[in-house]
Amino acid sequence: MNTPAATPAPLPEVSDWWATSVSRISPGEILLRGYPVEQLIGQVSLPDMVWLMVRGELPGPVQSRLLEAALVAGVDHGPQAPSIAAARMAATCGLGLNNVMATGVNLLGDVHGGAGQQCMEVLDTLVHEGGDDDLDRAAEDLVASYRARRRHIPGFGHRFHPRDPRRDPLLDMVARAADNGDVPGRALAAGTALERALAKGRSRPVPMNIDGATAIVYSELGFAPELGRGLFVLSRSVGILAHGWEEKVGGARIKGPIPRRLLPSYEGPAPRNLPSRTAS
Amino acid sequence: MNTPAATPAPLPEVSDWWATSVSRISPGEILLRGYPVEQLIGQVSLPDMVWLMVRGELPGPVQSRLLEAALVAGVDHGPQAPSIAAARMAATCGLGLNNVMATGVNLLGDVHGGAGQQCMEVLDTLVHEGGDDDLDRAAEDLVASYRARRRHIPGFGHRFHPRDPRRDPLLDMVARAADNGDVPGRALAAGTALERALAKGRSRPVPMNIDGATAIVYSELGFAPELGRGLFVLSRSVGILAHGWEEKVGGARIKGPIPRRLLPSYEGPAPRNLPSRTAS
Amino acid sequence: MNTPAATPAPLPEVSDWWATSVSRISPGEILLRGYPVEQLIGQVSLPDMVWLMVRGELPGPVQSRLLEAALVAGVDHGPQAPSIAAARMAATCGLGLNNVMATGVNLLGDVHGGAGQQCMEVLDTLVHEGGDDDLDRAAEDLVASYRARRRHIPGFGHRFHPRDPRRDPLLDMVARAADNGDVPGRALAAGTALERALAKGRSRPVPMNIDGATAIVYSELGFAPELGRGLFVLSRSVGILAHGWEEKVGGARIKGPIPRRLLPSYEGPAPRNLPSRTAS
Amino acid sequence: MNTPAATPAPLPEVSDWWATSVSRISPGEILLRGYPVEQLIGQVSLPDMVWLMVRGELPGPVQSRLLEAALVAGVDHGPQAPSIAAARMAATCGLGLNNVMATGVNLLGDVHGGAGQQCMEVLDTLVHEGGDDDLDRAAEDLVASYRARRRHIPGFGHRFHPRDPRRDPLLDMVARAADNGDVPGRALAAGTALERALAKGRSRPVPMNIDGATAIVYSELGFAPELGRGLFVLSRSVGILAHGWEEKVGGARIKGPIPRRLLPSYEGPAPRNLPSRTAS
Repeated sequence: MNTPAATPAPLPEVSDWWATSVSRISPGEILLRGYPVEQLIGQVSLPDMVWLMVRGELPGPVQSRLLEAALVAGVDHGPQAPSIAAARMAATCGLGLNNVMATGVNLLGDVHGGAGQQCMEVLDTLVHEGGDDDLDRAAEDLVASYRARRRHIPGFGHRFHPRDPRRDPLLDMVARAADNGDVPGRALAAGTALERALAKGRSRPVPMNIDGATAIVYSELGFAPELGRGLFVLSRSVGILAHGWEEKVGGARIKGPIPRRLLPSYEGPAPRNLPSRTAS
Repeated sequence: MNTPAATPAPLPEVSDWWATSVSRISPGEILLRGYPVEQLIGQVSLPDMVWLMVRGELPGPVQSRLLEAALVAGVDHGPQAPSIAAARMAATCGLGLNNVMATGVNLLGDVHGGAGQQCMEVLDTLVHEGGDDDLDRAAEDLVASYRARRRHIPGFGHRFHPRDPRRDPLLDMVARAADNGDVPGRALAAGTALERALAKGRSRPVPMNIDGATAIVYSELGFAPELGRGLFVLSRSVGILAHGWEEKVGGARIKGPIPRRLLPSYEGPAPRNLPSRTAS
Repeated sequence: MNTPAATPAPLPEVSDWWATSVSRISPGEILLRGYPVEQLIGQVSLPDMVWLMVRGELPGPVQSRLLEAALVAGVDHGPQAPSIAAARMAATCGLGLNNVMATGVNLLGDVHGGAGQQCMEVLDTLVHEGGDDDLDRAAEDLVASYRARRRHIPGFGHRFHPRDPRRDPLLDMVARAADNGDVPGRALAAGTALERALAKGRSRPVPMNIDGATAIVYSELGFAPELGRGLFVLSRSVGILAHGWEEKVGGARIKGPIPRRLLPSYEGPAPRNLPSRTAS
Repeated sequence: MNTPAATPAPLPEVSDWWATSVSRISPGEILLRGYPVEQLIGQVSLPDMVWLMVRGELPGPVQSRLLEAALVAGVDHGPQAPSIAAARMAATCGLGLNNVMATGVNLLGDVHGGAGQQCMEVLDTLVHEGGDDDLDRAAEDLVASYRARRRHIPGFGHRFHPRDPRRDPLLDMVARAADNGDVPGRALAAGTALERALAKGRSRPVPMNIDGATAIVYSELGFAPELGRGLFVLSRSVGILAHGWEEKVGGARIKGPIPRRLLPSYEGPAPRNLPSRTAS
């Protein structure tokens, strides 16, 4: 029996539906953004490859090193992060490492993995709004506006670190690149202006976190904000793999959030009998 | 209302349940395998970081470059791969890039992403069974045994490439490293012995594919077979990001496997009426 | 080596962190929303159970049947839907049925599975804004406002069905329940007012789709809009299972969006050589 | 630029690639296993629909009620289960309910969700091997063989319940159906024979768990073992939705396995300095 409504259509429609500029595969040939893969292997670094694949051209050496530094910085923040914890749990449920990693990556959503993207959007606004002179004033206005709405500025504030140890090495690298004219330096200026504005009149500063520091790097390198999340996923995937693997090697089975002898508190209704009822 | 069975327990049980050797996080401090993160940023490469996180120590420079070459080699094989296609579909369903990437990664299972792991296990067997002299004979026996069971040897044969363009640059790098004593060279010998055994008496050789070539690299570097899959996930995640992003930028909505005007063939029962029935 | 900063804390903190009103598990006892599971098995229907678990109390028989009808209505719309297609692809990659189903479910995001939720929000607005008399006017204003912004009203319009065959049986059931006073009938009135407003002055009406029809049911039953997506996921999971299983039984391996002999069109740069460069 | 290797092909190849017996969709028509969807809505139960979609025909009323009972029985076992815990974590990371549910479902792998499938395979073996007379002996042999290999028989043994409260109501329903000739009763006989064999000579019996009890139901109903996992996924999805929703309503952000003030124990190397090294 055939599909009733299938109208004859020219074949190109089908291959066009899946058209791409990323790669061309034909027998014996793999072109990635136009480059034969055999020329790339052993010649370009993994961060070069990330850049080439998502942007279409290879980066310069300074750009590549900045990207690499940011990718290295975000690999892990311990098993108390839900992405890592969920991956470790998955590893105890008999899943393959691909499913373990997918489980962790899936959790890097708006709240857990999206702050970098959101911070890039904030930086972008400041960079385009504020001239050189009034960047501090623009930052102060933005801070005031967020505080009036009782919202946090994404990329700033850490529940844990008074000063995130990843901030200084990343920002120092950006500053050097800006001094040498390798990056514009505007996102760096915007980010540090925000940091100053947040500290003003506070006994306890609101420190830049990893989302803020990497947002500055990725913005300086010209990545679209949404890619900030994608790059963070690549970076954190390394930590997810390391933790999932450690759990696999450990051999625990069906590991939930609390040890087996403990039980979650129960806050629901007291035990009750099912009312007699006619079949629904 | 409280949990009835919660027996008092000492607190360390809880933090021990989530003990790890991968990282230590405390206020102002992030140690990754013992190294302060601020010393790693800008100093080690991303492949160095992968190695450190999953194995606990930093690699030597030759090891690091071999790992990088294999990670670069596997990033993409086009949108006809189901991992890439599923990620592109996900991108048209309004998901965040983290969910898009998780969707693609999840598909890299035993069949699509596990051949490298399986090939590493085969190489491991050959390396431990065969002495230098009789590696070819051991490989021929293994090929005969697979053929008798009508099974394919993982890592060999490609539905597409008569000779995979990624094979030679990867194997050349391994050969140079083996010549210099930087890697043992035994997995390389086993893999090429298998390739010869598969070609013997055949008009059309069974070429080594990317799973086979990277399996040789990862085996030479001493990774456990299961990590072969994990490393492939890291590598292919780059292509998944590039394709998912391209689809996002393109803006298509709810993109299924075939264009909307076409319909899948239907092979089920002809239209029929529901028999009258009493409520189940 | 111990965690440096772990301050002693009372144990209850840990079980409270995972407190729940949904279920209480202790040795020999499983309470679901207060009911012993052994009283529920064989006595309540699966839709009763869905209602009990997400809302805390059992539904009446009319409510239960309406919920069941909506859950039955949404199970499948063919393999051209990306959720189904991705699950079928996953089945050919050697994944377990749980991973296959997760792959499909993950795709039911804002665009592919969220229209019901969005429609419930629109209905909610109309119900609260419009009195009985001016519901049609309120609906016309809303349609005008969406058209002015060139946006579609979620739950209306179908690229395929001039009249969705699932609309009438669902709306008839709601109408009967409203006539008998079992549901308020306000969401039904709002939804049909929207349908009229959309058809006004158009040669070709904008038909209510499955998202619109089930949104009316779920709104009449008092579910929160966000649960509209959750209920759709439960419903479509049935189709995802059926299709994933069919593909598993079929035994295809690594099935991408287009048959192997075809290739996606390539729109990227022409083949080019890697520029000679110093190591990055 | 066009794909180089795209050979002209007849169009049917494309729609055949996605052929299905599950559903036929054409303008104004949705056939599910041949039945028009408008005839199914309001007429068949959700378990009927599950059966129809995965098996192609509607079940009888006793079959449908048995399936429903098993689906009801498995919906939840508390937030300490990793599938539920991971979904709750996902809910605190800003994901949509579809992604939350996919996260939980993904974890129902060989260890956490696959025991039912494995138990069905064991029951199948016993049913086909053992005649009526020697079922107990076959069960004892099987238990002895598992014990010799220090393996657990899937579906038996519970870390928590001395007697799982879901066992008796499910097995009583199966027994009544077998007495009435509605199901064969062989899987029930095999399962209880295993239970007896496991208890023999033990002070503490090895109780049947939910995987064992539902495996008996699904085997009696003639489902393939692999579908045992698929049906469990449908069932547990209800609990995953309830818990994920509770967590969403609660509003916690980035909730990991342990409260924020606690930290996982660290068992890795002591703090150390990065050795000075040349760029890799």
